[in-house]
Amino acid sequence: MAVEEITSDTSNMLSEWPPGPLDLYRKKASFDWKKMRMLIEGEDVTAFKAKVWRTLEREPLFFHNSWEELTRSEERRLTFARMKRLLEIKFVNEEDYLTNPYLIPAFVQTIGAYNWSLIVKRVLSQEYFVTNAMTNTSDSENLVDDIKNFRAFGCISITEMAHGSNTKDLKTTATFDAKTQEFVLNTPSLEATKVWSGVLGQTATHAVVFAQLYTPDNKCHGLHSFMVKVRDPKTQKPFAGITIGDMGPKIGLNGLDNGFMHFNNYRIPKGSLMNSHADITSDGKYVPRVTASEKTGATLGILSAGRVFITHMSITNLQMAIVIAVRYSATRRQFGPSTEEWPIIEYQTQQWRLFPYVAASYVLNNFFFSLYQDYVDFFVTSFNPVYGNKGEMGAEIHSLSSCAKAVCGWMARDAIQESREACGGHGYLKAARLGELRNDHDANNTYEGDNNVLLQQTSNYLMKLFKEKIDNQKTVNSPFSSVNYIDDYENILKTKFDGDVHNLNSLIKAYRFIVCWLLKQSDTKMNVLLKKYNGDIFRARNECQAYYLRSLAIAFFECNVIERFHTFCSEQSIPENMRTVLNKMGLLFALWTIEKHLLILYESNYIAVEVSNNMTTSVRETILSLCSQLKDEAVALVDVLSPPDFILNSCIAHSDGRIYEHIFDALSHNKGAFQQPDWFTEFTEKKPQILTSDSQLKAKL
Amino acid sequence: MAVEEITSDTSNMLSEWPPGPLDLYRKKASFDWKKMRMLIEGEDVTAFKAKVWRTLEREPLFFHNSWEELTRSEERRLTFARMKRLLEIKFVNEEDYLTNPYLIPAFVQTIGAYNWSLIVKRVLSQEYFVTNAMTNTSDSENLVDDIKNFRAFGCISITEMAHGSNTKDLKTTATFDAKTQEFVLNTPSLEATKVWSGVLGQTATHAVVFAQLYTPDNKCHGLHSFMVKVRDPKTQKPFAGITIGDMGPKIGLNGLDNGFMHFNNYRIPKGSLMNSHADITSDGKYVPRVTASEKTGATLGILSAGRVFITHMSITNLQMAIVIAVRYSATRRQFGPSTEEWPIIEYQTQQWRLFPYVAASYVLNNFFFSLYQDYVDFFVTSFNPVYGNKGEMGAEIHSLSSCAKAVCGWMARDAIQESREACGGHGYLKAARLGELRNDHDANNTYEGDNNVLLQQTSNYLMKLFKEKIDNQKTVNSPFSSVNYIDDYENILKTKFDGDVHNLNSLIKAYRFIVCWLLKQSDTKMNVLLKKYNGDIFRARNECQAYYLRSLAIAFFECNVIERFHTFCSEQSIPENMRTVLNKMGLLFALWTIEKHLLILYESNYIAVEVSNNMTTSVRETILSLCSQLKDEAVALVDVLSPPDFILNSCIAHSDGRIYEHIFDALSHNKGAFQQPDWFTEFTEKKPQILTSDSQLKAKL
Repeated sequence: MAVEEITSDTSNMLSEWPPGPLDLYRKKASFDWKKMRMLIEGEDVTAFKAKVWRTLEREPLFFHNSWEELTRSEERRLTFARMKRLLEIKFVNEEDYLTNPYLIPAFVQTIGAYNWSLIVKRVLSQEYFVTNAMTNTSDSENLVDDIKNFRAFGCISITEMAHGSNTKDLKTTATFDAKTQEFVLNTPSLEATKVWSGVLGQTATHAVVFAQLYTPDNKCHGLHSFMVKVRDPKTQKPFAGITIGDMGPKIGLNGLDNGFMHFNNYRIPKGSLMNSHADITSDGKYVPRVTASEKTGATLGILSAGRVFITHMSITNLQMAIVIAVRYSATRRQFGPSTEEWPIIEYQTQQWRLFPYVAASYVLNNFFFSLYQDYVDFFVTSFNPVYGNKGEMGAEIHSLSSCAKAVCGWMARDAIQESREACGGHGYLKAARLGELRNDHDANNTYEGDNNVLLQQTSNYLMKLFKEKIDNQKTVNSPFSSVNYIDDYENILKTKFDGDVHNLNSLIKAYRFIVCWLLKQSDTKMNVLLKKYNGDIFRARNECQAYYLRSLAIAFFECNVIERFHTFCSEQSIPENMRTVLNKMGLLFALWTIEKHLLILYESNYIAVEVSNNMTTSVRETILSLCSQLKDEAVALVDVLSPPDFILNSCIAHSDGRIYEHIFDALSHNKGAFQQPDWFTEFTEKKPQILTSDSQLKAKL
Repeated sequence: MAVEEITSDTSNMLSEWPPGPLDLYRKKASFDWKKMRMLIEGEDVTAFKAKVWRTLEREPLFFHNSWEELTRSEERRLTFARMKRLLEIKFVNEEDYLTNPYLIPAFVQTIGAYNWSLIVKRVLSQEYFVTNAMTNTSDSENLVDDIKNFRAFGCISITEMAHGSNTKDLKTTATFDAKTQEFVLNTPSLEATKVWSGVLGQTATHAVVFAQLYTPDNKCHGLHSFMVKVRDPKTQKPFAGITIGDMGPKIGLNGLDNGFMHFNNYRIPKGSLMNSHADITSDGKYVPRVTASEKTGATLGILSAGRVFITHMSITNLQMAIVIAVRYSATRRQFGPSTEEWPIIEYQTQQWRLFPYVAASYVLNNFFFSLYQDYVDFFVTSFNPVYGNKGEMGAEIHSLSSCAKAVCGWMARDAIQESREACGGHGYLKAARLGELRNDHDANNTYEGDNNVLLQQTSNYLMKLFKEKIDNQKTVNSPFSSVNYIDDYENILKTKFDGDVHNLNSLIKAYRFIVCWLLKQSDTKMNVLLKKYNGDIFRARNECQAYYLRSLAIAFFECNVIERFHTFCSEQSIPENMRTVLNKMGLLFALWTIEKHLLILYESNYIAVEVSNNMTTSVRETILSLCSQLKDEAVALVDVLSPPDFILNSCIAHSDGRIYEHIFDALSHNKGAFQQPDWFTEFTEKKPQILTSDSQLKAKL
């Protein structure tokens, strides 16, 4: 069932949507949803996703429905069993991935849309762990084979209870004992308990453990990783010297077993040290293998992968939420000017709440494909000893993936919430799926870096380049060109808005102005603060975040997203009817995001005084006008993004539009819908000991 | 255990917080948290709440912990049993409520902080139902007595599957049959299924059912309510002719049993008609008792009560979330300029994310107390046949409670989410309670009116007054003075900003300008649209929502909130040290909310050109400066708002500040923390059928 087997006739892979109330709007769309889907993700990906989804729907183990209620232990059992089944089905081989690297995120998205715990458990224990294992330990080949064949189960263990973002200060120790040629692992305090390690709670046999390496002379050489056997694969019990626990219930992702762990003089062989960056001699001398900056570069690359994928997961959640909300809005009717009620999608407020997220679905989808291509280029380059700007590529990918993960995570969060509220009471049903999306998605805004901390990675990168430009006249450019315009910042800061809110180019110019303005302002502010704090960069940066560096990173991201979408829309091969719709979405997205930065454009006088009287109104009226123009496209636009009903699994958003039948189905099938609770005699027989009437009460007083 | 028994020495009722890491900041506060608590809620309320909380903590039935995982059926059973126990304990008598009406919301808040399902179930089945029952049916006295003594259990049934906000179009029918002197209830379609009725799912014996009244001549007289016996109180089974189901799992509030219901020629006696507004003669003639406008006035009053209480519930959630986030931030340390890490509350971003919500907790708390006083005045007046402006009072309360419910609901939603993210990974633990707060609170933004629809109630009210001023020179004023300044709109629109961002008075003036500006702009826009649509007010209003009427209602609310806080802070009796802190919070709240309207102030030239260059920066710098000034007060400020640890029930926010001990407690006590899953042989023995190595795979290809 490898990718080659997929039929080339992709159109046939996509079934027509069933007839029903949604036809009203489907007929009005100006484009063919199947062609649009293939345009925005490529035929291979479309075909691959369709194939995977069909397979899942046929697999008995993957049966589910929208109203089911599982206990945490049932979720755990099912997630594990399904993960195992995924290994058997093996949708893609490594070779397919090399031929079309887009199949990797497509696989993650496709399974994730079905169930996030499942794909997170899969990726953490397989792909992520293998990437770590392959590059480092001495017996890595055997281990990788064990992992792939279910003889071992891996996890990564970094975070401690008291240290997350600040990994440098982790407290777990690995002390080398030259006598036995072993490292001794210890958890020195309650606060140093390893926590949040995914897959550790119930299943992992191996963990990549991050600990402070101590040589026998009691000298600390900083954080290193070790491949540690934590459970006996025969019995699945932790080895003596290790305590492992399951972290229990979380807000979401409860199919995933996050674990915590203590070491008590737990001994591991010398070879457990992941030694690509440094090693230790048998008499206990520490030998670094790469320079600190090389190490940083490599680390940045690996960390970026996680963020690139989380960006994609966020976009997938945003898309699913908006599919649900738009379909519901096109079929739900309420009020109207005459006896016939309007579908609520006809209301300005509903359009204004939802359509910017429809636009975001497309604009961010394109951003992801484009960023992923950059990441693949970087990845390929990093294995090429000749080609030279690995470090620069790594730094730019790091900068882009950091802000992308943060802003996409937040946009998806807001889209899910707006969708939940836009679907009213029915959106509050568990069976609508919006609650599950929100709870599972929530983790994306925290793991692999808190969003606000990540934005600092981007602003640090930008400020560094800007500083070198100012101080040393160094040209600002980068391998993927995201920062090149900054080189022209002096001229950009002299420009004024050309007044054309209907032109994406004009908005890109405005965005570049915002980025340059924030760079300049942040630089000025930083200099003042550095003086105030006698050069203490830590304190200076701290007081330069809100409204400065944080806004800078967000605006920089949005600018880049819009630039990439502009490039995409300019491709000659796009049929004109599709281009028209795509352009409208690009414009809507740009206006909707730039609206939040308009104060900067006023304060900086980028909006000249003589036109300032209506700039805000122009932006806002254009947003509303675009929403109105997209109204008849919206259902087809979300059809493009929608997985099959079985995967979307929402009782308020079936593709047949028969919302009330499906809601009633969910209501009447939930567990115990028509059953009397077994405690009903608590009402019928056992009355509470209260005073029997108001008059008796008064008599008593 | 009535209120009189509560000791007058309130200070003694409040225990000191246990010593621990939070002392660092507690010691720095400029005021006494106990005095502040009594100042902002009154001694009676403080004492009452303390008493209730202590009682709950001692009741075995109310035992809970932060890591417990209950199935829905366990939640239902417990909620029911606790509700029954609350009736036995009877914290307050009706007399106490009359003496101090603030005890009513205090009771709701106190129990709600413990568990929202419990208090919602209690209020819906008791207070809300009784209010409905008492005023209307013929045998209401007996029924009320039955309800209070657990012989009957009531619910309200309005919403149908296809109709929520648009109640006028509900489809359930009640046709009078003169032969038998009965009404015949029918559910004419699947879409007309009654849904969301709280307490109906498993428990109600009686329901106030809203249905279209048909006389025997087949004439429809519109929506009326009927007291319907739905279950036999002896067996708890639905009567023949009624199908009742439980709606199953929801996003939150799963202790509450929402139900759905079908009628199939279900006959109820003639006397079931709730006949205070209209009645029917025995030969089937319809007799209205009140005019339509009288009916509207009375209805508005009843509906307002729900919104007033939801406003309070939202504020309570906002407060609990911010208590958790501030305590966590004051004890969690990460990074730092030297070897000692900083508590994350020291970071500008963290302050900027959280402290505006600390301010909102106080400003909105005061708003609620003030609005509630207005509501009580209205309520008392409505029973007074002489005093004349009931209608005006009702309309103003309706306007205020509508926007209050919407904006407070959203602010609480955002506060909970920001708190969740600000607490990082640990905030994602179920035991942190933020997930539960979010899921339970979510309903507040939908039930008793979708927020966006509610805002239209406020804008309609304002626009009507404004129109009468413009067209008929009618003075704008209202019983509770919330709109009085609008009368002076012409002069207000001529004013300019005085530039003082540190003065709450200046900000109130700016807010009043914003409200008047939006009124004027909306009126102009409406006139254009009315012309465009030939006087069709429905379409005109629809296209005047985003940026106009919606913004108007929000700004009007915020202005009113700030005015009321300003009045409160000016009270002579407030000690100066407390006034200083309160003033800072008022200012922070005002700047933080007005920032979102600054574009209006630019576009309208309220900010004169010569100062516009730094208005945005001034506002923002002042926000940051106030955050920084409040940093050492924040822990004490949330101590004022915090329920006891047992009620707050968050493993990351105990009042002793020992976060890691409590987190570890939650981790190690959750169900199955150290247990092997019973499916572990799925890994150790039953291997998946996959190819055993990459080389074999290649050989096969």
